[in-house]
Amino acid sequence: MGTVIRIGIAGYGNLGRGVEAALAKNPDLTLVGIFTRRPPESLTPLDPAVPVFPLDSLSGRTGDIDVLILCGGSRSDLPEQGPALAASFNTVDSFDTHARIPEYFDAVDGPARAGGRTALISAGWDPGMFSINRAYGEALLPDGATDTFWGRGLSQGHSDAIRRVPGVAAAVQYTIPSQEAIDRVRSGERPELTTREKHTRECFVVLEPGADADKVRDAIVGMPNYFADYDTTVHFISDEDLRRDHAAMPHGGFVIRSGNTSDAHTQVIEYRLALESNPEFTASVLVAYARAVHRLNAQGRVGAVTVLDVPPGLLSAKTPAQLRAELL
Amino acid sequence: MGTVIRIGIAGYGNLGRGVEAALAKNPDLTLVGIFTRRPPESLTPLDPAVPVFPLDSLSGRTGDIDVLILCGGSRSDLPEQGPALAASFNTVDSFDTHARIPEYFDAVDGPARAGGRTALISAGWDPGMFSINRAYGEALLPDGATDTFWGRGLSQGHSDAIRRVPGVAAAVQYTIPSQEAIDRVRSGERPELTTREKHTRECFVVLEPGADADKVRDAIVGMPNYFADYDTTVHFISDEDLRRDHAAMPHGGFVIRSGNTSDAHTQVIEYRLALESNPEFTASVLVAYARAVHRLNAQGRVGAVTVLDVPPGLLSAKTPAQLRAELL
Repeated sequence: MGTVIRIGIAGYGNLGRGVEAALAKNPDLTLVGIFTRRPPESLTPLDPAVPVFPLDSLSGRTGDIDVLILCGGSRSDLPEQGPALAASFNTVDSFDTHARIPEYFDAVDGPARAGGRTALISAGWDPGMFSINRAYGEALLPDGATDTFWGRGLSQGHSDAIRRVPGVAAAVQYTIPSQEAIDRVRSGERPELTTREKHTRECFVVLEPGADADKVRDAIVGMPNYFADYDTTVHFISDEDLRRDHAAMPHGGFVIRSGNTSDAHTQVIEYRLALESNPEFTASVLVAYARAVHRLNAQGRVGAVTVLDVPPGLLSAKTPAQLRAELL
Repeated sequence: MGTVIRIGIAGYGNLGRGVEAALAKNPDLTLVGIFTRRPPESLTPLDPAVPVFPLDSLSGRTGDIDVLILCGGSRSDLPEQGPALAASFNTVDSFDTHARIPEYFDAVDGPARAGGRTALISAGWDPGMFSINRAYGEALLPDGATDTFWGRGLSQGHSDAIRRVPGVAAAVQYTIPSQEAIDRVRSGERPELTTREKHTRECFVVLEPGADADKVRDAIVGMPNYFADYDTTVHFISDEDLRRDHAAMPHGGFVIRSGNTSDAHTQVIEYRLALESNPEFTASVLVAYARAVHRLNAQGRVGAVTVLDVPPGLLSAKTPAQLRAELL
């Protein structure tokens, strides 16, 4: 089996908890501890035996952590922690603000190179596995078109936006791909569809006492950027129903590449995820890439990297010879 | 754009023809020529301007071919040509006898290393893209199960087996995945299904004049290894119908990985190919990997490699920075 890879978790929300659960499924990885900005004693890890430390104690742990998995958010945590921690640790993160990835890559690359560390940014499923499939699709069928569909899934950003509407006590929002759009894309006809044409939005809202339902609905469906351009349905439900029926965080989607290899022949490649828990799946991706990052660093590949730079076999606990015999 | 990569095609059947078609879709690759064991003047390339040379003239062309794409068969061509040509060329092939891949890898690895060349073996879709998805699936969901389904697609091996039955003038065989089995696997229940339980076989047969249909049917459905263990349907049709309705070579299938990231949550990953032309798609995969092999060799990675050793980004004509900005 070789040596065990020692993992640290930085940040313990839904994602950090998912990483702890994923590590339990990977016997060649071991959890050194959870590092948090909150008072360590306030955390309750899934396994009570896991030690919890203050985040700022990480500086003394460079010798006993092989890869640090950064589980903070993309808005404020990672832009600060990513570059700082990549200077002294091999890291994996799920930075997911698509438009800022090039900038974040550069911010992490310098410190990681200077420290001889490997920092894999933007792992997860989108960015992440979906990005890989967009890259393969384009390379295999250069004369073609790629479409990404998201859902059916709970969108955290859209749920948060609804919660900011006056009169809303609680809410969740689901993004739903249009079956008609999926069928058109699968047929290989390469329709030109906007994100709006490919998805609808469904909201489940708990009103504050005395709030005006019509006013709240209008405020939601007319909200610029988030809902105004979409076909949006709003359901008002009780707090009880929300807790009972909408506590899970399902998500997923499709990446479909269709293209022609000749005038006569259309080919369709489809990658689909159906996730009962978005954070647990994202966490599982981070953990598999932690194994790969440890190996990349041992090979001397330092600096920032992305999932597009990592050979598939490097994610596996199996040896290259085993993979050739069993999976090829 | 950088320099153009110079490609040679060794062997010109359906696959070689598909490679010629695929190269026309990739402007950063250029076709130096087709190399064949047949009399060169007997070949008709898709583009009449493409030069055709005898296979044994390859030895004088090591300086003007960056990557040689081997389009021979796995039974007798590649076991001989693969090791011999990898000594003096970077190569890509589609060796697809799954059980013999480790042995073939070793046979190619030695000469390639000695010659400082890179030889990518067993590219295509299975082995190939399906192998990649089996590896990713296992690594991302270690507590899970992988199922591969093939079809609906024309199986060359099974069609050939039917043609050897006395009384058969011509035939094609389609492998059809069972929808019930697909649904069970997609549900995440991880059923234990044999290949037989996951597929049925459908045969379209043209009889020789005077042949006994019942005898032929019995000989087909009872054939060991090929049909005896399967639910097999035989249709007798005219030669005209066979030519009109069964000349295409569609294929495809699914790789489905389902697994648990915790007791509470099942996750399902599905990769699906719907191919109107099996040889043209396989050829497109070989061509994208030819680009990657050229780069791997430039990076000093010599010897035999497989698709599991190649980072996804290396297949793309785009730069890493472009890929990060556009696809991540």
